[in-house]
Amino acid sequence: MDGLKKHIEEITPITNEEFDYIKTFFKEKKVKKHQYLLQDGDKVTSEYWIVKGIFRAFHIDKDGKEHILQFALENWWFSDYNAFFSQKESNINIVCMDDAEVLCLTLSGREQLASEFHKMEHFFRMKLTSGYSAQQRRIISLLSNNPKKRYEEFASLYPNIMQKIPKKYIAEYLGVSRETLSRLYSTTSRD
Amino acid sequence: MDGLKKHIEEITPITNEEFDYIKTFFKEKKVKKHQYLLQDGDKVTSEYWIVKGIFRAFHIDKDGKEHILQFALENWWFSDYNAFFSQKESNINIVCMDDAEVLCLTLSGREQLASEFHKMEHFFRMKLTSGYSAQQRRIISLLSNNPKKRYEEFASLYPNIMQKIPKKYIAEYLGVSRETLSRLYSTTSRD
Repeated sequence: MDGLKKHIEEITPITNEEFDYIKTFFKEKKVKKHQYLLQDGDKVTSEYWIVKGIFRAFHIDKDGKEHILQFALENWWFSDYNAFFSQKESNINIVCMDDAEVLCLTLSGREQLASEFHKMEHFFRMKLTSGYSAQQRRIISLLSNNPKKRYEEFASLYPNIMQKIPKKYIAEYLGVSRETLSRLYSTTSRD
Repeated sequence: MDGLKKHIEEITPITNEEFDYIKTFFKEKKVKKHQYLLQDGDKVTSEYWIVKGIFRAFHIDKDGKEHILQFALENWWFSDYNAFFSQKESNINIVCMDDAEVLCLTLSGREQLASEFHKMEHFFRMKLTSGYSAQQRRIISLLSNNPKKRYEEFASLYPNIMQKIPKKYIAEYLGVSRETLSRLYSTTSRD
């Protein structure tokens, strides 16, 4: 769990004694490639901090079409937060794209840590602040229907990810064809 | 500023003495109908808590087309948060739809309040939690391209708003024609 301590300390210093207590709230979990961490209809009991691996979160619409909400990489926090915060059933799926390890934290664990430590309340607020900003950028890029802008937003959100994720998923995330993706990739690389 | 105290106390109790100090961080501002609170290119120095009035936040894409990100009503916090948190220039516009009063809070003010009071750190985290969930629902509704779902999401986010906002803006927010909006409205009302 050393990585988690380092990760928290990017935002706030914590003592070894504090971390020894904090880590008791986390549960380790290994996930195999193609395994679902969360499925549409599941009650969302945990959020996850990724020790290693890559995940893909997607929604299936009423016509059975998949829409990728996000990818999640090492050091990222993720879940179906809408369902997690309200302790309801998920309406998304989260699948593992490469053998992974995650640390699981329940909502009551999160709230207890935030309540007992002002610095953990601060940590979670700062993480939400970046997540909120990233979502706002995603909404604008979806609304403005500009594939180039969407691609640039993607590249800034997921630097160096092109080699790690099959291009078909990147094209699906951006809502463009494979051909358009190749063109965006080569145009933007030349800029 | 009594409304603000009541609003904070929906999440955490505060004493009169604490609030007397907290309120010194807020600056009152009156905004006229049609007045811009924020324009594309402005440096975003404040977030706003709406005492009264309605606002519309929109992005203008490269083809000059407007896309509505959100409406904001009494008791809501809003800003271009992506730009506010990073203290950069806005890429959205926020316009007043009805004579309004807001309370302005700077980022340094927000951070100082959160740092000095654990309960204010908690308050801001809880507000971000709901905002984050609402944005996730908006992303899913945009991705799934299902006007009925978008309408239902709109109705749950903005209850009783139909009388307060001209229908053309609601249709624009949903990305549907006025005719489709009327159909959705009558279908959903009958459900």
